[in-house]
Amino acid sequence: MERIYITYAYVGEDPKSIADVIRAEQTIEFPYELAPKWMQEEVVGKIEEISSTDKTTHLITISYNPDVAGAELTQLLNVLWGNVSLFPGVKIVDLKLPSTILEKFKGPRFGINGLRKIFSAQSRPLIATALKPMGSDAKTLADMARTLALAGFDLIKDDHSLANQPWATWKERVTFISRAVAEANSITGANAAYVPSLNMPFDQMIDGAHTAQELGASGLLVLPGITGFDSMRVIAADDSLSLPILGHPTMLGSLVTSKHEGIAHGIVFGTLMRLAGADISIFPNIGGRFSFSEEQCLDIADKSREKLGNLNSILIAPAGGMTLERIPELIEMYGKDTALLIGGALSRGNLADNAARMSEIVHTY
Amino acid sequence: MERIYITYAYVGEDPKSIADVIRAEQTIEFPYELAPKWMQEEVVGKIEEISSTDKTTHLITISYNPDVAGAELTQLLNVLWGNVSLFPGVKIVDLKLPSTILEKFKGPRFGINGLRKIFSAQSRPLIATALKPMGSDAKTLADMARTLALAGFDLIKDDHSLANQPWATWKERVTFISRAVAEANSITGANAAYVPSLNMPFDQMIDGAHTAQELGASGLLVLPGITGFDSMRVIAADDSLSLPILGHPTMLGSLVTSKHEGIAHGIVFGTLMRLAGADISIFPNIGGRFSFSEEQCLDIADKSREKLGNLNSILIAPAGGMTLERIPELIEMYGKDTALLIGGALSRGNLADNAARMSEIVHTY
Repeated sequence: MERIYITYAYVGEDPKSIADVIRAEQTIEFPYELAPKWMQEEVVGKIEEISSTDKTTHLITISYNPDVAGAELTQLLNVLWGNVSLFPGVKIVDLKLPSTILEKFKGPRFGINGLRKIFSAQSRPLIATALKPMGSDAKTLADMARTLALAGFDLIKDDHSLANQPWATWKERVTFISRAVAEANSITGANAAYVPSLNMPFDQMIDGAHTAQELGASGLLVLPGITGFDSMRVIAADDSLSLPILGHPTMLGSLVTSKHEGIAHGIVFGTLMRLAGADISIFPNIGGRFSFSEEQCLDIADKSREKLGNLNSILIAPAGGMTLERIPELIEMYGKDTALLIGGALSRGNLADNAARMSEIVHTY
Repeated sequence: MERIYITYAYVGEDPKSIADVIRAEQTIEFPYELAPKWMQEEVVGKIEEISSTDKTTHLITISYNPDVAGAELTQLLNVLWGNVSLFPGVKIVDLKLPSTILEKFKGPRFGINGLRKIFSAQSRPLIATALKPMGSDAKTLADMARTLALAGFDLIKDDHSLANQPWATWKERVTFISRAVAEANSITGANAAYVPSLNMPFDQMIDGAHTAQELGASGLLVLPGITGFDSMRVIAADDSLSLPILGHPTMLGSLVTSKHEGIAHGIVFGTLMRLAGADISIFPNIGGRFSFSEEQCLDIADKSREKLGNLNSILIAPAGGMTLERIPELIEMYGKDTALLIGGALSRGNLADNAARMSEIVHTY
């Protein structure tokens, strides 16, 4: 039987002991020696390998029976990082899922190929931006969106901080902006997508996704760090919806910023986003106002594109304080399977001019 | 107007610059100087205080207009820790919420006083345990639950790792165990509660809570690190449910284990759990197999009990590798407003004997 393989980097002494703690903690959560023998063998994780660089730097690989995760993403996350998240000095650096698990996930509905068809973008990067700042009224945001759509942008998303504030409530905003983008599309003949945020109360999200589609939105921004990875999976798997999903990194920072604890960047922003059905994974690029290194960013790119069962590979959107000047560097670094996401910088000077320039740079690169 | 006050510990140079970045990042996410003056004043956060211990150790307090959080827990979390979670060296160490925000939350339905009534436990700690190990069938778990209920336990919860595995599917488990606990209650005349886990797919959780209640469960275990804090809030606020909620720390470790990043223990396991409606907050106690310090544990106790608008104060359940021998120490440290949660250790030797002994220790302390 195929198994789940998780490799943990461990900083500390006595890796065998911590390996024994982890393999029980993530399964039976019970004194190993008190469990029946069949349970020790079939339910508790197995130590596959321990390799040590020095006395306090180790890699521990433990394999798990896929049955411990049931058939659910929620329990898979629990096996992956549940109580181990409370241990000091443990970080997940590799994850291999068996086909028996991968087959249970539909994954990204569109992925790279599907997105390229929607936007008639055979090989170029997609052109993306965020509507902001919070405090703008719905009409102002709609005017921005129209300008950006007319300039040839593919994806015009809500800033992730736009929720249901008094300056522009969610429904008003989605109504106004969807209409503005549709008007622009009728002029350009293109297929610019407005992507509203679904950072909504738990019991309103599914309705919100359907309402957004009815109001004319052409994509959905989901914030799994707040609403949970499974909220995204449910929306991605809903056959009465047909909108690509953008996954946003808000609140997920705590899974990755610590050097010795957490989960590797590629697993969070690549593998988990794909399992949960994101078509595009947004993450803070190196050199913006955030903290990701080049290696971490490229790990995300790899995990977004590598073979993962039959799940679609996805576009990455390296973002966070990006500027027009950095576009060639971004394409050089990540290749063309990206969505170039530039937000605030487009508002320095004239938005229409900057948007046209960005569109031209990408189309002629 | 009252405001939200967030204090960040910052490790690094130039705290004024990072404060300026944070106050814009968590609101307009846009170049400050390009925002209209009214927006700079009303929407962007305000730096209230910066105090420095030395060149690289600082406390920064920023206040926010409550309107940036709208009326929703999801957006409040986004303002609190959204993109800042991706910054290195920043940790939230204090949070003050205005009454305009607190009034929007019902909070814990029962809280300490409500729980004391349910279990006729005027001043003693509640007696709690977890059903395990994973791999046991539903009948075995039901037999354990009966034994524990007969011994006088108040709260008999699913181990947090029990989801919908082949060894005992969720519905079968909840049916069998609810029945066993009801039988025991009919013998003892007590009110022992079976608390199944709601670690379920996003679109099944609310139904799951109702099904659990119909099947005779008397509490719900919610895992907000996986299903989101707002999933708990919705269940706690649902007037057709009347079950106390136990909040479990799984996957929340990443918010607290890093020394210089994340959110203070008391805010996560006290304040956020209360806002989201937990009646009992479970956390790994000092001296088990986890990493929390005495100070961090006491911070959780404080935040679970301090005045927080009109929200009920809640019981804490310091857990994780606890033993009978540590009960006096636990009561000494935390007082009697606790749920003493001992799991695997009860299975060393005879479960019925150990359970009776635990019950006796607590009742006669």
